[in-house]
This record gives sequence, structure tokens and C-alpha cells, in this order.
Amino acid sequence: MSLSRREVVTTLMGGLAAAQAQSPAVKFVRFRKGGQTAHGILDGDAIREIRGGLFDSRQESGAKHALKDVKLLYPVEPTKILALAGNYRSHLGQQPAHPYPEIFYKPVSALQNPEDPILIPKDATDVHYEGELVLVIGKRARNLSVAEAREAIFGVTCGNDVSERQWQNGKNKDVQWWRAKGADTFDPVGPVIARGLDYGRLAIQTRLNGKVVQKDSTSSLVHDGPATVSFVSRYLTLMPGDLIFTGTSGTTTRMVPGDVVEVEIEGIGVLRNKVAAA
Amino acid sequence: MSLSRREVVTTLMGGLAAAQAQSPAVKFVRFRKGGQTAHGILDGDAIREIRGGLFDSRQESGAKHALKDVKLLYPVEPTKILALAGNYRSHLGQQPAHPYPEIFYKPVSALQNPEDPILIPKDATDVHYEGELVLVIGKRARNLSVAEAREAIFGVTCGNDVSERQWQNGKNKDVQWWRAKGADTFDPVGPVIARGLDYGRLAIQTRLNGKVVQKDSTSSLVHDGPATVSFVSRYLTLMPGDLIFTGTSGTTTRMVPGDVVEVEIEGIGVLRNKVAAA
Repeated sequence: MSLSRREVVTTLMGGLAAAQAQSPAVKFVRFRKGGQTAHGILDGDAIREIRGGLFDSRQESGAKHALKDVKLLYPVEPTKILALAGNYRSHLGQQPAHPYPEIFYKPVSALQNPEDPILIPKDATDVHYEGELVLVIGKRARNLSVAEAREAIFGVTCGNDVSERQWQNGKNKDVQWWRAKGADTFDPVGPVIARGLDYGRLAIQTRLNGKVVQKDSTSSLVHDGPATVSFVSRYLTLMPGDLIFTGTSGTTTRMVPGDVVEVEIEGIGVLRNKVAAA
Repeated sequence: MSLSRREVVTTLMGGLAAAQAQSPAVKFVRFRKGGQTAHGILDGDAIREIRGGLFDSRQESGAKHALKDVKLLYPVEPTKILALAGNYRSHLGQQPAHPYPEIFYKPVSALQNPEDPILIPKDATDVHYEGELVLVIGKRARNLSVAEAREAIFGVTCGNDVSERQWQNGKNKDVQWWRAKGADTFDPVGPVIARGLDYGRLAIQTRLNGKVVQKDSTSSLVHDGPATVSFVSRYLTLMPGDLIFTGTSGTTTRMVPGDVVEVEIEGIGVLRNKVAAA
């Protein structure tokens, strides 16, 4: 299945138009046009180009591009990607909540652009979606209080923490989740980073071939963004652009080649990917 | 405890002088002098500076620096770091060998330079050394045969896969090994990348305050370098500079502030770090 530019633009601008109109959030994207990539600010059906990096000396270059003329990319190039395990009450079921954030890594090599395919590895048998709110770190972060951590979060985006359940939890599961959570294309992220949005109470849903398969609110997170960043920063130095997937809700199901999976978060947008065989 | 430049040079050039003399390996280092960092070739007690990156268009600039005048750094800046669990027969004890490499991630934020301190996190209680042979990837690697994987390994270096055992395996262990293997300074690597060395049968030892605490041969690896790279490349794209810690031998013990830990591999060199409180 292939999505036209028109469909992409419609998805970005349509379903969330009301939320966009009410929100004071600035929406940042990263895009490619010709051979060049740049960051920009999403402004209706146009992108106002930015110079000088997203996190420090950014300023508008004056160039403006029609959304239909660019390829939207994953919105930052992180030095590392963290993710949370068991961080929604609805995902934990009868299990008790973890007393502090339980973290794992997803490799940067698994990043995938919006609209580009999630590839099912040849010997994978049980690859699931996990729609998630993703934190984008904006400052070098080490030993931060919760208040300082809140300031270190530049914005939020949509992510799909693609997971092979047999490698993760099956009878012959791996010692650690390296390929279960990290095979190439298992980190789709973007396209929009919303900055200035209160992300503590956003509707979040995942759709598989148009059918809603996960539905919750970010208010159900066990450990919220600032608490998570503060905790992590006691052990690791976070860098500008680093991503933290905040966990998934409810239960998940298998994806197969030909499927289309969408993660939509209120006030941010839609992350859409096809599924294909590797 | 502080090590003088003279001691560093002595360690680098002394114990392994015989192996160096016999080996055709080229020894690459990364170093800082003044405010500049560069790669270079170790040549006796001097470094011949390189321009143009280590993996593609490298050429000697003509500049030469005395080893005593530079600060040696971890030898590459990887996009990701992988490590193997349970990959020496002597470390597995009675456990059966894994049928394929069992991988986990160490974050790039935990890289530490030779001679700089391993910092014990405030609430850590059981931080161990793990002396290891580390593979340095030299080419973009995806779906490689074992023969192709051998060509994709640029060289080998020394690493210490520092590990907090309570977070890793204790009663209240974490879900995944994120901080057990990834707290800041838990990835000391270097200083030398040996290229052109047959790394399949090298003596490897770890010393704690001068006492040998691990001793084995890289011939005891369950999954060797090319087999590991080939397997990993079925799932992940490896990039030039990426590192793979190949696992540790025997048993390990706790390090405390004030300790000095050294990993020595025949024909490569010595990686030495102090241990200090964070």
C-alpha cells in the first residue's frame, strides 16, 4: 500500500486541526527537499525553515516550503534512545507498578521516518506495534531535580516502540531485548515535535488499518516525563536530541506486511508507517 | 591515586614491547593536544597524526607528537555500542553456551577515556570490572556473511564492561541492564586500536591494583568476532566506529574508590583506569 502526498498532508492537517487551532504549541519538523535536510516550523500547509540547529541558536532562514514538496523525516538525530517498560496502568494489568522508571535502550540505527516502512525481519514471527508519547531532550541533563528535568524536555513527539514478542518474552527469549526492540526500522518517530504543549493529559491512540487498537491518556503514565528524566539523569548524561519513549498502554497485537499503523497524539499529530517484509 | 604521564608511557611501551616488535599490527589512537583532537598512528613514543577520518580517506598529515605531550582518548566515537553476555566458557561455569550471540547495549554517554576515572554511582553497591576484547567496526554492515563480517572489523581494542551486579542480577534487579551496564563512565575503552592483528588467540588479563584477577585467551570466546558481527548484522545495521564488547572471562569482583583497574591484551596494549566516587 502506498500513501500519496495528498493523503499525508490531509492526515497531518485534517484530524487534528481543532487541537492545532487551540494549542499554543510550536511544531517542529525535520525534512528533506532535493538533497538537503533541515529543521523547520510547521505552519499550516507550509514549513518555515530553521538555521543553526534545533536546540541552541535556531533562527528562521526566511525560506518557506510547501508541505507537499518535502519528505518529512524523524524529527531529530539523537545520540541515544531510551524507552520505558510497563509504564501505563492499562498495560501492567494485574502486575504492580514499578517503583521507579524501568528503562531499556533502542539503538539509533533502528530510527525510521514517518511514512517509511516498518520491516519485519526474516525470522521474526510476532512483531507488535506500541504507540507511545516520546520525550525530546533539549539540554545536556545530569543529576536534575524534577523541576529542572521539566525544563530539559524540549518537546514531545509520537513514536512506535516496535517489539518482537518472541525475542522479548517467548520460550526462547533473548537475554536482553536488543533485537526485540532494536531491529532496523523498529524506532519510527515523528513527524512533529510539539513544544509548549502540556503533555500530561493528552489522548493517545494507535490504529491498525484504520481500526483503533490502543486508546488511553498520557495522564495514565505511572512515571511522567519530568520524573523519568530526573531519575535517568542520576545515572546517565542525556544530550540534546536524545529520545525517551514513555511506554505503551493496554494490549498489543501482531502486524504483518501490508498493514498500516498509525500513532496519533492529541495536539501533536499522526505518525504513520506501512509494514513490509524485510 | 594519580598516574603520571611517565607511568602511562611506560605501561604502553613497556610490558608489551615484545609483542609490538613481533606484530605487523598498526596501532591507531585518538588524542587531544591543546584544544584539538585527532586520530594518529602510535609509533614508538610518538604519534603520527592522521587527517580525514579513521575509516575512509585517512592519510598522514605529517605532524608528529610526543606521546608524553598528548592526552589519549577513547579511540573512536561510535554511534552505538553492543556487548555480549556469557561469551567465555570460563564465565559461563555450569551454564550451557548460548547457541547464538546474546547481545545488550551500552550507551555512548558512558564512554570513558583511558586513565580517567570509573565513577561509582552514589547508590551503587556492587560495581565490578569486566576486561574484554572490543571489536571496532570499519564499514557499514548489514546482512553480512562471516567472511564479509571479518572484513568489516577494522581492528580490536581493550574495554572494561563495568557492571553493577545488584542492578543486573540482584534481588531487586532492573527489568533490563540499562544502568547496570550503562551508568556514566561504565564504558572505558582504548587507548589503542590494533589493525592487522590476528585477534583469535590473544592472552587477555585484568589486574586490580596490580593483582591478576582475570586471565584467559580470546580463543575461549564461544562466538568469535566475525560470527558475532555476521549474526548481529542480520538484525541491525552496524556503522563505522561502532563497538562490540565480546564478553568477559572467569569471575569478577567489586571495585571501590581508590582502586586501579587494568585490562591488558597481548599485542594491543593496556587500558588503565582509576576508580572514584561519583
